[in-house]
Formats: sequence, C-alpha cells, structure tokens
Amino acid sequence: MVLYDLVGQGDRRFSPHCWRTRMALAHKGLAHETRPTRFTEIPMIAGATCRTVPALQDGERLVVDSHAIALHLDRAYPAGPSLFGGSGGVALTRFVENWCAGVLHGALFPMILMDIYQHLTEEDRSYFRSSREKRLGRTLEEVSADRDARLESFAATLQPLRATLQDAPFVGGDAPLYADYVVFGAFQWARTVSPVRLLTDQDPVKAWFERCLDLHDGLGRRAPGYD
Amino acid sequence: MVLYDLVGQGDRRFSPHCWRTRMALAHKGLAHETRPTRFTEIPMIAGATCRTVPALQDGERLVVDSHAIALHLDRAYPAGPSLFGGSGGVALTRFVENWCAGVLHGALFPMILMDIYQHLTEEDRSYFRSSREKRLGRTLEEVSADRDARLESFAATLQPLRATLQDAPFVGGDAPLYADYVVFGAFQWARTVSPVRLLTDQDPVKAWFERCLDLHDGLGRRAPGYD
Repeated sequence: MVLYDLVGQGDRRFSPHCWRTRMALAHKGLAHETRPTRFTEIPMIAGATCRTVPALQDGERLVVDSHAIALHLDRAYPAGPSLFGGSGGVALTRFVENWCAGVLHGALFPMILMDIYQHLTEEDRSYFRSSREKRLGRTLEEVSADRDARLESFAATLQPLRATLQDAPFVGGDAPLYADYVVFGAFQWARTVSPVRLLTDQDPVKAWFERCLDLHDGLGRRAPGYD
Repeated sequence: MVLYDLVGQGDRRFSPHCWRTRMALAHKGLAHETRPTRFTEIPMIAGATCRTVPALQDGERLVVDSHAIALHLDRAYPAGPSLFGGSGGVALTRFVENWCAGVLHGALFPMILMDIYQHLTEEDRSYFRSSREKRLGRTLEEVSADRDARLESFAATLQPLRATLQDAPFVGGDAPLYADYVVFGAFQWARTVSPVRLLTDQDPVKAWFERCLDLHDGLGRRAPGYD
C-alpha cells in the first residue's frame, strides 16, 4: 500500500486529513509506505486521477478522501481492530467529522494558516496563497489577524469534545476509534506547523491529545512539530 | 414499566430529556405507561429517590437519567432494534449528547424559556423562576432578551447536524438511532411550548425533524405543540 501524504519543507507532514489516514493504517496494523507529496504535486498522483490527498493506492485500487479510505480499510481488512465499532459508529463518525470540519478546523485555520504558509516550499506557497485567498475572498494576512482574540474564544469551542473526554479516555470510549483520529488530525495539524499554545495543561483535551501522540508506538509524537 | 414524564399545564409534555426516553421506548417496542409529573412533584417520585426526570421504573429497578435509561433499555432488552448500533455508537452518542447539551440546548434555552414558563402551572412557575434565575444569575426576562438576534445566529449553530443530514436521512444513517432522539428532544422541546420558527422549510434539519415526528406512529407529532 502507498499513502500519498502531504508534505511541506523538509519532511514536515502537516495535513489533518492525512494524519487521520496514517493513524487509521496504524490502528489496523497495515504495512504501508508513505509518499511525501507537495500541494503542487497532487495533480501528478497516479496518472492525474485525483485532486486531493490523502490518496491510498491499495493494489489496483486508488481510494481518495480520508473518510472513504477509513471505510475501505475497515471493510477490506476486517481482521484488524475496527475503526468504527459497528454500524452506529460509522454513522455517528460523520457527525464528528462534520463538527471537526466546520467548527474545529474553522476555528484553527485562521490561527495557523501563516504558520502553514511558512512551512511550505516556495512553489507551494504561491499555490496556497492564490487558492486560499480565492476561496476566502481575503488575503491570508487578513484572515489570520487577531490570533490572540481567537485563541481566547477557542477553548469554549471545544466544549463537546472536552465534556466527552471528561468521562472517557477517548472519543471512542475506553480505546481510540477513527473518530479520535479525525479530531487528532486537527490538533496535529496545528502541532506540526505552529508554536501557538492551543490548550492549557489542565484541559482534558490536552491530556487526550498527549495520549493520542503516544498511540501506535508514538507515531504522532515522532513527527517534527512544536511541543 | 412506568416513565415519569415532565408535564406543564394540561398535558403539555415538553422535556427534551423525557422525549429522548419516550422515543427510545417506542424504538425498542416496549409497552409502558407515562406518569405526568410536574417540576414540583419530582421530589415525590418513588419514595423521594430521584431529583430529575426522566426516571423509569422497570420492575424493581428505578433508572434515572436519559442516558442511563437508554443504556439500560438496550442491555436489558436486546431483542428490540438497537439504540446504538454497536459499542462505537454507544461511545460516539456521548459526543452528540454533549454537543446537544452545550451548543444546541444552550442556543435554544434563551429563545424558549419564557414560552416554557407560560406553559407551567402557577406552582411550577415559581420553582422554575427561582431555580433558573439562581443558576443563571439573571432574571428570566434578561436571559431571554434579543430573541431575534439569537434566531439569526441559530442556523449557523446547526452546521454539524445539517451537514450530517445532507448525506443521510438520520444522524444514525439510514435509520434512526438514539443519537437522533437526543437531538430530536431539543427541537420537540421548542415545538411543544413555542411558536418560534427555528428552521426554514429548505433546511435539511427541518425535513429530518418532520421525519422524526412521523416515527413510531407519529408519537412526536401527536403531542400538543406549535406547527
């Protein structure tokens, strides 16, 4: 198996969606190779058949999109520990993904986007600036203004996650599920590019993130980042 | 089985947490009687052993708290359709409950609290006012101010729910799970006491709520409310 994994300067792996997939592959215990891929290299993957990463080449099959990859892994490799814990888990993971996409990524992106930018190669910087500024309708600098004010309201944003982690060590309960990796990806995105301190040491979310960094022989913690 | 179910004036059943349990009992196909209970009658339930409703007397056992009741029903009556769809569903339902408690109820309560108040008996009004004002540190009237402004931002609050329901008919996927009843309870809370129009006709959340009202022979729709 080959995972096309977003990379910045050097070997900086920062994509939140790719981190979901790396953790899912480790959770299933599946041997694979990661192929570092820059933003501007994505259109060249596998004969120009996909536009986003993560993309997983599994034998003849190319699976694109982190959610589709997770479903594929759980179905094609039922022997490993489940990523979802049953059909209810599959359905409710969507809710966690949608909360993560809209609320968590929405809150994080303005706070770390200049840090992402700084960690990209020159060529990728141009792509990142033009594509994101087009999507957002503002300059990167405008979007990223007022980080301190955003940071203050960020803690409240985490309420559903924090309340869940006050009762259980993982979002998935006693052990991690793919829903944990979905949320982990967001915090790992920030950790790999930004020195910003998002969580206080007293926050149950911080303790959970540290637990996630230790999972699968410290896969997340071994990645270059800010601690 | 006897369900102690919160009631206002007449037979107005409005408690969001009690609605979760009524839908869960119907989902499992379990015969039961509901016992209408006013706020000020809760301390008299079953020999003064509980302080909140819903409370379910199942034979010798009194189960208190909607989440505990749902777990009890699924474990004690495995023959009926599952409320969680596996262990992953049990765990991730907590996230949905926490989102509902913090975000959804938090947004709804100031908009409907005076409507709740109007539907209570005189005795319950005194209890409701004093207990809520103590908890909130402000008068009911102060908390409920600016409903129009709150209503404007309410739609955005629903993003994770809306995105989920754009892809599937229920939060639980193709069929409802307890997570649907958790969220349904919040909207039914509003529907039973308040004429406020929370959802536009184009909102996928509205279509989902209508589907939920029709479930279990229209259990939700038959309850007195505003349509």
